[in-house]
Amino acid sequence: MAGRARTDHALERLVFFSDAVFAIAITLLVIEIHPPRFDRAVGTDALHLAALANLVPEFMGYIISFFVVGMFWMGHHRSFALAAHYHPRVLWWNLLLLCTIAFMPFASAYASANVQQRVPTIFYCGAMLLAALLNLRVNTIATSPPMVSAKAAPADAARVRGRGIGVVLGSATAVLISFVEPRFGQVGLVTIPLWQLLLMKRWARAPA
Amino acid sequence: MAGRARTDHALERLVFFSDAVFAIAITLLVIEIHPPRFDRAVGTDALHLAALANLVPEFMGYIISFFVVGMFWMGHHRSFALAAHYHPRVLWWNLLLLCTIAFMPFASAYASANVQQRVPTIFYCGAMLLAALLNLRVNTIATSPPMVSAKAAPADAARVRGRGIGVVLGSATAVLISFVEPRFGQVGLVTIPLWQLLLMKRWARAPA
Amino acid sequence: MAGRARTDHALERLVFFSDAVFAIAITLLVIEIHPPRFDRAVGTDALHLAALANLVPEFMGYIISFFVVGMFWMGHHRSFALAAHYHPRVLWWNLLLLCTIAFMPFASAYASANVQQRVPTIFYCGAMLLAALLNLRVNTIATSPPMVSAKAAPADAARVRGRGIGVVLGSATAVLISFVEPRFGQVGLVTIPLWQLLLMKRWARAPA
Amino acid sequence: MAGRARTDHALERLVFFSDAVFAIAITLLVIEIHPPRFDRAVGTDALHLAALANLVPEFMGYIISFFVVGMFWMGHHRSFALAAHYHPRVLWWNLLLLCTIAFMPFASAYASANVQQRVPTIFYCGAMLLAALLNLRVNTIATSPPMVSAKAAPADAARVRGRGIGVVLGSATAVLISFVEPRFGQVGLVTIPLWQLLLMKRWARAPA
Repeated sequence: MAGRARTDHALERLVFFSDAVFAIAITLLVIEIHPPRFDRAVGTDALHLAALANLVPEFMGYIISFFVVGMFWMGHHRSFALAAHYHPRVLWWNLLLLCTIAFMPFASAYASANVQQRVPTIFYCGAMLLAALLNLRVNTIATSPPMVSAKAAPADAARVRGRGIGVVLGSATAVLISFVEPRFGQVGLVTIPLWQLLLMKRWARAPA
Repeated sequence: MAGRARTDHALERLVFFSDAVFAIAITLLVIEIHPPRFDRAVGTDALHLAALANLVPEFMGYIISFFVVGMFWMGHHRSFALAAHYHPRVLWWNLLLLCTIAFMPFASAYASANVQQRVPTIFYCGAMLLAALLNLRVNTIATSPPMVSAKAAPADAARVRGRGIGVVLGSATAVLISFVEPRFGQVGLVTIPLWQLLLMKRWARAPA
Repeated sequence: MAGRARTDHALERLVFFSDAVFAIAITLLVIEIHPPRFDRAVGTDALHLAALANLVPEFMGYIISFFVVGMFWMGHHRSFALAAHYHPRVLWWNLLLLCTIAFMPFASAYASANVQQRVPTIFYCGAMLLAALLNLRVNTIATSPPMVSAKAAPADAARVRGRGIGVVLGSATAVLISFVEPRFGQVGLVTIPLWQLLLMKRWARAPA
Repeated sequence: MAGRARTDHALERLVFFSDAVFAIAITLLVIEIHPPRFDRAVGTDALHLAALANLVPEFMGYIISFFVVGMFWMGHHRSFALAAHYHPRVLWWNLLLLCTIAFMPFASAYASANVQQRVPTIFYCGAMLLAALLNLRVNTIATSPPMVSAKAAPADAARVRGRGIGVVLGSATAVLISFVEPRFGQVGLVTIPLWQLLLMKRWARAPA
């Protein structure tokens, strides 16, 4: 039982560390957007509105990335809520996932600074696809033996994985669209909830 | 009871993640203020004092934003102290709130860099109004069934919402003032405690 | 007892939020130091060593500020370890303290960028004196009724305050020295442990 | 028992603060990589691919530093999982370790910006050697009396230290290689797992 308490503590600390990295990465997304600055003598309302309009792609990129990272966090949240035991195998996969998440502020800033261009859009959606794959791996480990709690309903574990697969399919769709028509690349991410809905229909047999 | 423990854990992790985003956003507020730098041969006391005097709007903006974000955190703190159960509905509203909070370093830097100009002041106060509305929504969900604790006094829940409504009214006042006279826009925020006092008189029937 | 559990939870969340702000402020200290960058064709060892030598004031400033903020965190740590009850009064004083701590990356970068100049040195030591005063106030509230634990030894509370007064006196010494001879201003901070030792002799009657 | 609970709380808060600093430092590693930015009229795929190719050393540096800081975090994690009691001695050593960890974003950015040059490579590997030595010191304190848990298996403590010594030897190897041939300096870090494996063979007598 001493060992039990210790491994649970290890699980808690892993979750805490992951939460912190998710929270910092998500909050750093904004710092690559630089505020326009005009002298009071020059800065008319029209000039400011034009400067803000110029930043719209950055704002959109911020919001999309915030919700994407937030979605990864929620998946992590949901899958580790089903885990009761720590296992060293999750440590490295989780670190790989966090490495990709902490990279998101760069990928997001790069895509927003070069909006509607092919390479930056593919780069961004590709980074997300990588995160989605690692996310699925980590969530599958956390919801499988030996980590999963004996009290966790199998349907809950299946639902967590179904969501994860939806993110993978949606990100892959976005990468494919970016190759063909970069302008609609990030729109491909909108298919994530559609894929999830589709998969949920197959998995969701237990009550929420 | 296993389910109970699990949802409580979900609530805790949500609170933790929110706290981290609040803490990071509040601490990032300062990094848009760039320190003046003079060579030792040039940097007289007078030059330094003038450079610091130039930064006074930035300092004021930092302090105002720090207390505004701090106030949002305190509202979150107070309302989730009354919650005992997790409910998925709060997740998305909370993420929207955090998205606005994490955006504050940009809004604050933009307003401070263009002090007393109409568009930046409205932009800043508008961002705060949006955060105030989302904050009210999240706090209302957290202090309502099914999330609210059976042991929470209804007067406490009412007080938390009263404070939230005060922030909404104060932010709206600031937006309105900014349209008419940008120089006094942020002064409008001072009305937040006044609105709260006014509303508290109606709600505060239970002891603090 | 429900109320008891709730206020303890409020205390925990306050401590958590404060810890996060301390941790972020302390980790942001480094980001105002910009790495030198030379092309491979140009970057000889001598050039790099000279560039690093130029950064020595920045490195020193980083280390001093890291330990000063670390010391504030330790004081917070020690005093809240003696607290068992939450009281709303501590909330605002703590927010003021955190506002000053989160400001440290600016004050530290400003002093390091203008090393040995009077105004920046006074500014930095003054920011620290302000933090020291707020720190003393917060720690005194946390180690006094109604917050202090019934089990806390009065000698421990006295020791925490003695340390806090030592930081105030050391910071005030640094401010005074900076007025007279800026080059030795930060050296004044070295007197903090001396003041603490002096005060400890009077307070430290209980075993560590 | 009151005292016991209090010191355990001190240990928890120390671990929490350390986790936060590790998490922030690891997430800040990316912000020194600045995204390329091209106008839509100019930004061809070839131009973007060339710009990204230019950033490969930065990307490699990010990944290496992420895993090195992650490894330090895991060592901290593992050793404090074996500790059950708080002791003030660990406080200062831990603060020194965190000071070096929080410095990593600078060292990493400096090395990546001046790839394959001698001084930056030695500086980076030297910073890591310092962190490795402090890490070993902190982990040894945490896994020795009076901090170590009575229930911790001596073999686990030995394994934690063995890993720590492996990091020291690997970092020292990297420093030595950097002096002779900077291009392969960071490759020296690959020897860390080799040293650990070598040492593990001697220590690992207990089941994982």
